[in-house]
Amino acid sequence: MSKAGYRVAVLGATGAVGQQMLKTLERLEFPVESLLPLSSKRSAGKKVMFKGEELTVQEATPDSFEGIELALFSAGGSVSKAMAPEAVKRGAIVVDNTSAFRMDKDVPLVVPEVNEGDLHDHQGIIANPNCSTIQMVVALEPIRKAYGLNKIVVSTYQAVSGAGAEAVDEMYQQSGQVLNNEEVKPEILPVGGDKKHYQIAYNAVPQIDLFQENGYTFEEMKMINETKKIMHDDELHVAATCVRLPVETGHSESVYIEVEQEGVSVSELKELLQGAPGVTLQDDPQEQVYPMAVDAAGKDDVFVGRIRHDLDNTKGFHLWVVADNLLKGAALNSVQIAFSLEKLGLLGK
Amino acid sequence: MSKAGYRVAVLGATGAVGQQMLKTLERLEFPVESLLPLSSKRSAGKKVMFKGEELTVQEATPDSFEGIELALFSAGGSVSKAMAPEAVKRGAIVVDNTSAFRMDKDVPLVVPEVNEGDLHDHQGIIANPNCSTIQMVVALEPIRKAYGLNKIVVSTYQAVSGAGAEAVDEMYQQSGQVLNNEEVKPEILPVGGDKKHYQIAYNAVPQIDLFQENGYTFEEMKMINETKKIMHDDELHVAATCVRLPVETGHSESVYIEVEQEGVSVSELKELLQGAPGVTLQDDPQEQVYPMAVDAAGKDDVFVGRIRHDLDNTKGFHLWVVADNLLKGAALNSVQIAFSLEKLGLLGK
Repeated sequence: MSKAGYRVAVLGATGAVGQQMLKTLERLEFPVESLLPLSSKRSAGKKVMFKGEELTVQEATPDSFEGIELALFSAGGSVSKAMAPEAVKRGAIVVDNTSAFRMDKDVPLVVPEVNEGDLHDHQGIIANPNCSTIQMVVALEPIRKAYGLNKIVVSTYQAVSGAGAEAVDEMYQQSGQVLNNEEVKPEILPVGGDKKHYQIAYNAVPQIDLFQENGYTFEEMKMINETKKIMHDDELHVAATCVRLPVETGHSESVYIEVEQEGVSVSELKELLQGAPGVTLQDDPQEQVYPMAVDAAGKDDVFVGRIRHDLDNTKGFHLWVVADNLLKGAALNSVQIAFSLEKLGLLGK
Repeated sequence: MSKAGYRVAVLGATGAVGQQMLKTLERLEFPVESLLPLSSKRSAGKKVMFKGEELTVQEATPDSFEGIELALFSAGGSVSKAMAPEAVKRGAIVVDNTSAFRMDKDVPLVVPEVNEGDLHDHQGIIANPNCSTIQMVVALEPIRKAYGLNKIVVSTYQAVSGAGAEAVDEMYQQSGQVLNNEEVKPEILPVGGDKKHYQIAYNAVPQIDLFQENGYTFEEMKMINETKKIMHDDELHVAATCVRLPVETGHSESVYIEVEQEGVSVSELKELLQGAPGVTLQDDPQEQVYPMAVDAAGKDDVFVGRIRHDLDNTKGFHLWVVADNLLKGAALNSVQIAFSLEKLGLLGK
């Protein structure tokens, strides 16, 4: 049976995703008995709002998690690595929005519409997948279940808010500088921690996160590995090219898939996705109806359109998938995991 | 033997591409005896500069082409359809930058680095391919020639200058409006002649040109059909998703290919492209070296980077291809065709 409310902590409460977590917990009326906003030392003392109350953000220490039942983490991978085991030790379930634990085989990586059942195997930590992975698997899982899925080739069109609030500021600042014929001095994007920085305003930058030995970026490898893990299919072929754009919020994806079953039609796919959980179909080319980032921003669903048959491969299809990277791509999915945990009786035991 | 100079007309001389045609003829020192700038009635009387001289633009009529040896057209498909046969009738060779004749079997569709020899078959009109097609085939032809090519899946990231100077103005105007929290009222993009118009600033719009019956846009069908024609391979599998971005100049493309030959390595591809005509390799991930639109703008070459092996298919590779859509994508390619015609002794006969 559900409790009246849970003692919840949000770590990274002052960040772009943390702020959305607080708003989403409130908006979807997750049963919260008490809310503890936590942060790094740097942001401690700041105020955040929750259900009309002003709360003071506290510096996260291991003891912060005494008595906490649910902790939503979004304060960077190293913070998660240090703090998640401490929170679990003190009895909390951690839903972690960083990449720290996603590929650990003992950590379920969950998108509730796709693999909610994996939550039963949790050992204290549950990982929230990468933003660009989440929206893709929400759109593709109904297809995989119905017709099988052999191959995915995705090219992304990702918003700067995925790189944090400072990256958004940088984009708008550069936009103004270009408009005023002023010099642009990139300092953050494409990757705050990398050596070189490039203009994002009026540009498309084919780097998100650091490059790996194999020539792929870490973002691309996240999409590849996380998709296989969430769909429980190591044999699935997944390829990704991840690109940052001057868009504030809303990741778009051009997705090519090959299904297993022969004879699938576009109208079958449309019907399937129309009724799929978490999906809104926006697909009427003759009326110029298709998903766009500026429309998806602020909305919960994953928007799918431009579904069409490949002209050479009868098992091939193309889709355009758009979602709010801070909501379904991050905060909303974390809160949905919390609801799933509660529904499955896994919370507050 | 080459003549000292040719009598050249440029139709659409006041447009974005026409302007680049004049600049490119001058910059590359194409042998011009006389230059006649032509336009629609609306732009007639305007002044353009060529080799330091101010020329008055004249309204194009069939008789404008009397005595013209070479006519570069870039004034829209319907103008080309009406005027190109008239110019040919009067002895001119027409290099047409619209889609009017590209798929006619009697019209060579030429990218000089790829299929210069097709010029021998011309019957007066030569078509300049679509901007997004040109840069892709320049990058892929060396690979096709060396290793065979079975499949291309491309997702584009296209600049607004491809939609004309007014679209560029609209993008910058909308940018300013968003920065100032003013209402955005889209009037041109994604397609001037379509029913609905959408915000391009801080957005990604998956529509370039009008939708066809099959759910593809005309731009996507251009990439698919033109690529097969230029590469002389009807069996080649080509799929395209074309997306407009808030970038002024420089189309980027995320390209997935499958070669025919087994055992090709990334370093072989890099070596091949390093020496390929019209290609500059920019590919050093560890040093964050990859092509970007803002760098390619104003340059002649096609820039290729992020070359990497598909992780599942040994014959699969991914590339990132960027070029100036007004130069190699339009004006420069037209002028290069003119040079090729001269070299092959086909001009001024």
